[in-house]
Amino acid sequence: MILIEEALQLIDAQASPLAPTKIAVTQSLGTVLAEDVCSDIDSPPHDKAMMDGYAILAEDLQQGKAQLKIIEEVTAGQVPTKALSSGEATRIMTGAPVPTGATAVVMIERTTVADDSPELVAINDASIVAGKNIMLQATSLKTGQVVLPKGTLIRPIEIGILSEVGRVEVLVQPRPSLAVLCTGNELVSPEIKPGPGIIRNSNGPMLSAQAQNVGAEVHYLGIGRDDEAELKSLITQGLQHDVLVLSGGVSAGVLDLVPKLLADQDVKQVFHKVSIKPGKPIWFGVKDHGDRKTLVFGLPGNPVSSMVCFELFVRQAIGKLLGRSDQALGTVKTRLAQEFTHRGNRPTLFPAKLIQQEDQKIVSPINWKGSADLGSLTNADVLIYFPGGDHVYAVDDEVDALIL
Amino acid sequence: MILIEEALQLIDAQASPLAPTKIAVTQSLGTVLAEDVCSDIDSPPHDKAMMDGYAILAEDLQQGKAQLKIIEEVTAGQVPTKALSSGEATRIMTGAPVPTGATAVVMIERTTVADDSPELVAINDASIVAGKNIMLQATSLKTGQVVLPKGTLIRPIEIGILSEVGRVEVLVQPRPSLAVLCTGNELVSPEIKPGPGIIRNSNGPMLSAQAQNVGAEVHYLGIGRDDEAELKSLITQGLQHDVLVLSGGVSAGVLDLVPKLLADQDVKQVFHKVSIKPGKPIWFGVKDHGDRKTLVFGLPGNPVSSMVCFELFVRQAIGKLLGRSDQALGTVKTRLAQEFTHRGNRPTLFPAKLIQQEDQKIVSPINWKGSADLGSLTNADVLIYFPGGDHVYAVDDEVDALIL
Repeated sequence: MILIEEALQLIDAQASPLAPTKIAVTQSLGTVLAEDVCSDIDSPPHDKAMMDGYAILAEDLQQGKAQLKIIEEVTAGQVPTKALSSGEATRIMTGAPVPTGATAVVMIERTTVADDSPELVAINDASIVAGKNIMLQATSLKTGQVVLPKGTLIRPIEIGILSEVGRVEVLVQPRPSLAVLCTGNELVSPEIKPGPGIIRNSNGPMLSAQAQNVGAEVHYLGIGRDDEAELKSLITQGLQHDVLVLSGGVSAGVLDLVPKLLADQDVKQVFHKVSIKPGKPIWFGVKDHGDRKTLVFGLPGNPVSSMVCFELFVRQAIGKLLGRSDQALGTVKTRLAQEFTHRGNRPTLFPAKLIQQEDQKIVSPINWKGSADLGSLTNADVLIYFPGGDHVYAVDDEVDALIL
Repeated sequence: MILIEEALQLIDAQASPLAPTKIAVTQSLGTVLAEDVCSDIDSPPHDKAMMDGYAILAEDLQQGKAQLKIIEEVTAGQVPTKALSSGEATRIMTGAPVPTGATAVVMIERTTVADDSPELVAINDASIVAGKNIMLQATSLKTGQVVLPKGTLIRPIEIGILSEVGRVEVLVQPRPSLAVLCTGNELVSPEIKPGPGIIRNSNGPMLSAQAQNVGAEVHYLGIGRDDEAELKSLITQGLQHDVLVLSGGVSAGVLDLVPKLLADQDVKQVFHKVSIKPGKPIWFGVKDHGDRKTLVFGLPGNPVSSMVCFELFVRQAIGKLLGRSDQALGTVKTRLAQEFTHRGNRPTLFPAKLIQQEDQKIVSPINWKGSADLGSLTNADVLIYFPGGDHVYAVDDEVDALIL
């Protein structure tokens, strides 16, 4: 039995970022760039107006005032055809190139055109100095410049920048493909009313949602009975993916066939059992296909154990495959809202509720009945980490909490 | 021109949660329950074993020791057929029903079966008391009990609970359908190299990604030219959705046709212009179809203005339609890493980078050139809120920052 930290290190050592793949920019949200992206343009491509109004020569103004002759109107998508001389103005739209000779743009609200002399514009804006309301060419992006370095996480802003520099496809660490397989003769699908000794399979839909939540492409393989031939075929399918998450079948029971079948298919065990509660029986191994690997997680069948092991271990592996360093569970330092007695040698992750108290958040362990009690977890926002060993915690004691 | 808070209140007043819709549980992640969900079963459905091992009578142990006769083996999915009497044990798997008469389960690791007497099991576990390793029927869920009340946000845990109580479909506040339409003669698609006066449309892909990020179903309508017939047809399409996000066309320019076309289609203006930088020209209105509404946001065409207005205003509206109260941008109190001079009457949202300094995070405004400069924003994690009015901020001054 190894420690949580050792388990995480062993997973990290096996989970290398996936081979970079070209995908559509519109599909790239949440992935990580596997190339330096350069700009193929200057942005703005020309000195451009930042306001709707008139391009002028700043030096034409006297205490902010002047009456100027309108020589041209440039709307969006058009370019000026006339250079501006002293005494002249060009009507211009936000984003349009300013004409040669212009040194400032006066916003439309500071100008008046009289009905009886529509060729003249009166300016009144004491704030105008050279450069005002003009964005110089290449201020935002320069041709050839690396605008997004390899390793950048693609957020909506980066999707905007990629589009601005002409990218419709981009090389990224792809989303890992992840198979979920639930094992056990006692399981039936949620639509079936379970008979004696039978339970509904809540882990399949839950683990699929957890995987989807952290950016994996999920393939749900359904329920595998404790039958060698059937399980073998499903495991073979699962090993076609980057990650195979099994639930059930890794404890020490008579019919826990999973470790044997995995060994038969050359999945090498990395560890089995971690000193943690819930989740002790977790199994982790790797199938090396030569050109790629499949990471195999055997999670305990009890739903809370499965849920916790996914958040703690599988989630970190998915983050590593995606090339993201920000995807392990977030931890907060917080204080206990009530006394709590921890017993046992294993470190425990105990479900708890965050409570806002004045300007800080404190945590209150929920009334939880153990690893088969998923029902109570709808009241939980965090898992409190209690180190191994018997200890009575007092109200206000500081604890670490992992945010669900 | 109204204040940010007034704008948010006006949006809130128009954005009511959408009509509840039945969707597949597997598609429900991130939505909010529109019904009370009751359990149709007890969970566990029987007193069940929490460990692989032997069901016994706790009182048979003397200082934790006994040798008992194995009367039956119950694997997962099976039920015991024999009641347990003193001196007997039933081999049992995690999750299986315990036989009548059993008062505890001893884990397999604390038992031994000798090869020469396979009908007997030796127990050695001083921790056994009545009830040990048995989870009583209905501890987690009771038949008829409301397990998930209306208003619950569906996370992976709730998907697990819904599956456990037999739900494959569930009534939720559905994801709003949201159309994105970018207007302007100066725009071309990202794959085109822009000629003079032309820019690539970065807002379309960026706004689509922002909307996807907060749970909307996105329909991208592409680029609308400043042509009345074309724009009218696209706006008509857009008004079929719950939200229509336009970018461009709401400033005071000659070709800013959008407000007129919206009025022609009975979209009632709620506000135009908010005291904020960037994003002042934002327009908001509502089309009442009788049985449903379309919320229409006209965002300024400059990419940073569009991005900020979406995060501040559209995101809050989507959260309201989804019935989620947790979806407005998060705010953190933080401190400035450098001096900063704010000028102007409008409150400003200034892009900045979070820097970890010892155990706290401080913020450093980025070198940002204004609302057309999207390129620099890849360095930003937050937007610092500076209230209106000229003010010189010192290093270490406390500021509010909105997390991107």
